[in-house]
Amino acid sequence: MNLVILEPAEVAADGTTTLADARAAHLLQVLKVSAGQAIRVGLLDGPLGTGTVTHASTGRVALACVFETVVPPRPDVDLLLALPRPKVMKRLWAQLAALGVGRIVLTNAQRVERDYFDTHVLAATCYRPLLVEGLQQACDTRLPLVSIHRRFRVLVEDELDGLTDAGVRLIADPGVQTSVRSAVGPRTDRVLMAVGPEGGWNAFERALLEARGFIAVGMGPRTLRTDTACLALVTLAHEAIAAGAGERRMAVRQRPSAALTPAGNRA
Amino acid sequence: MNLVILEPAEVAADGTTTLADARAAHLLQVLKVSAGQAIRVGLLDGPLGTGTVTHASTGRVALACVFETVVPPRPDVDLLLALPRPKVMKRLWAQLAALGVGRIVLTNAQRVERDYFDTHVLAATCYRPLLVEGLQQACDTRLPLVSIHRRFRVLVEDELDGLTDAGVRLIADPGVQTSVRSAVGPRTDRVLMAVGPEGGWNAFERALLEARGFIAVGMGPRTLRTDTACLALVTLAHEAIAAGAGERRMAVRQRPSAALTPAGNRA
Repeated sequence: MNLVILEPAEVAADGTTTLADARAAHLLQVLKVSAGQAIRVGLLDGPLGTGTVTHASTGRVALACVFETVVPPRPDVDLLLALPRPKVMKRLWAQLAALGVGRIVLTNAQRVERDYFDTHVLAATCYRPLLVEGLQQACDTRLPLVSIHRRFRVLVEDELDGLTDAGVRLIADPGVQTSVRSAVGPRTDRVLMAVGPEGGWNAFERALLEARGFIAVGMGPRTLRTDTACLALVTLAHEAIAAGAGERRMAVRQRPSAALTPAGNRA
Repeated sequence: MNLVILEPAEVAADGTTTLADARAAHLLQVLKVSAGQAIRVGLLDGPLGTGTVTHASTGRVALACVFETVVPPRPDVDLLLALPRPKVMKRLWAQLAALGVGRIVLTNAQRVERDYFDTHVLAATCYRPLLVEGLQQACDTRLPLVSIHRRFRVLVEDELDGLTDAGVRLIADPGVQTSVRSAVGPRTDRVLMAVGPEGGWNAFERALLEARGFIAVGMGPRTLRTDTACLALVTLAHEAIAAGAGERRMAVRQRPSAALTPAGNRA
């Protein structure tokens, strides 16, 4: 735990809070905090800050928190994921929150087993603590938005545009040569990445996604398990967005706008 | 399982083999193979090929295999990893083999718990089947080489040069801005990536690695768990090598060599 996430309702107006749960146990037993010590805290979906320990004893830690004024931006990658096996999904929650995902859209598909939707792993009481665990690992406060969709076509045709405003939509396909970076280019600061079920999207699903602007990208010839593929693709999407932002900054520097150079010294 | 890996000793000189273990069970129960069907096979550390089912019944599958002449190249990323918790290491084996790692060098460090070395997860009888599982997922035959080192300094000073000929050595550091791609550039086709323990390398370890040519690279401000970081960094290293190879091909096309242009039309 590199950051203690606090729920807004846990913190009094003067910034004080008292923890008595797993976070307190971790602070006392692993980090061995004592009064006067400062630790990193974050308000869920709010700013980061510093918590000064005012009291630490058996099972209880009291903090006086001071928060920054800026709220971290929502991570710039959204994920459209065909629901994997519950065991795999359970492992993914914290890892996705740690890598940084703005929104997780879970969907049905032909090759998704119907009973995957009945698992407790899709209950907010199960996944929310796992997402928070990932945020505490990665020192972020922005809880990924989660929605679960049993009707693929309705999701893609009617709902997806309202869920994400990503400027580039990508669909992972092991058979494709186009890299994530070349597909993203310098043109966006938000990417929606679609990862299909084991066995892939069927032809109808694939066509529907392509009709809604998804571009196929590959990662070389290796076929990866859903969880490994998800982590790799989210990583590559982040890297592509960061590289694209760098390219845009370079372009601005190299081509000053007409307003900035009224004499117009263009080559 | 996207590929059935066969040990060289299992295959007769005429290419026939009979399976009666978990692979046979998977072929019969999940893939439901029958006589005459062709499946993808690979000889461990050898070529890929096609196996035609000649017999499939309760618990036994006989194959007649024809192998290609080319052996896949060893994956172009090597990993130097401070030994993580046994539970984490156990999960990593198959995922690393699937993502593609040429060599896995496991090392001690100050912040590695000593008893991590006593786990059965470091016995070849445990990890070898997990590596093969990763190869069968990713359709590769090249088993990652594994070595385990309890003395960090001896490893880095005396042994590492003999273990890997990677042209670029990188050390992951969350505080650094340099991206994997910019550190790799167009200059190599093999990267050694060093990933430290939870809590990081200490100053001595860090200095020793830098003295042996390791360049610090970052992945943005997020702090990741060892396993997530490993998968993300191996992914980025592969992507950087592929992009660098692309840049070299472009450079060759743009600057024809003197031998090819004897008239010497250089600008």
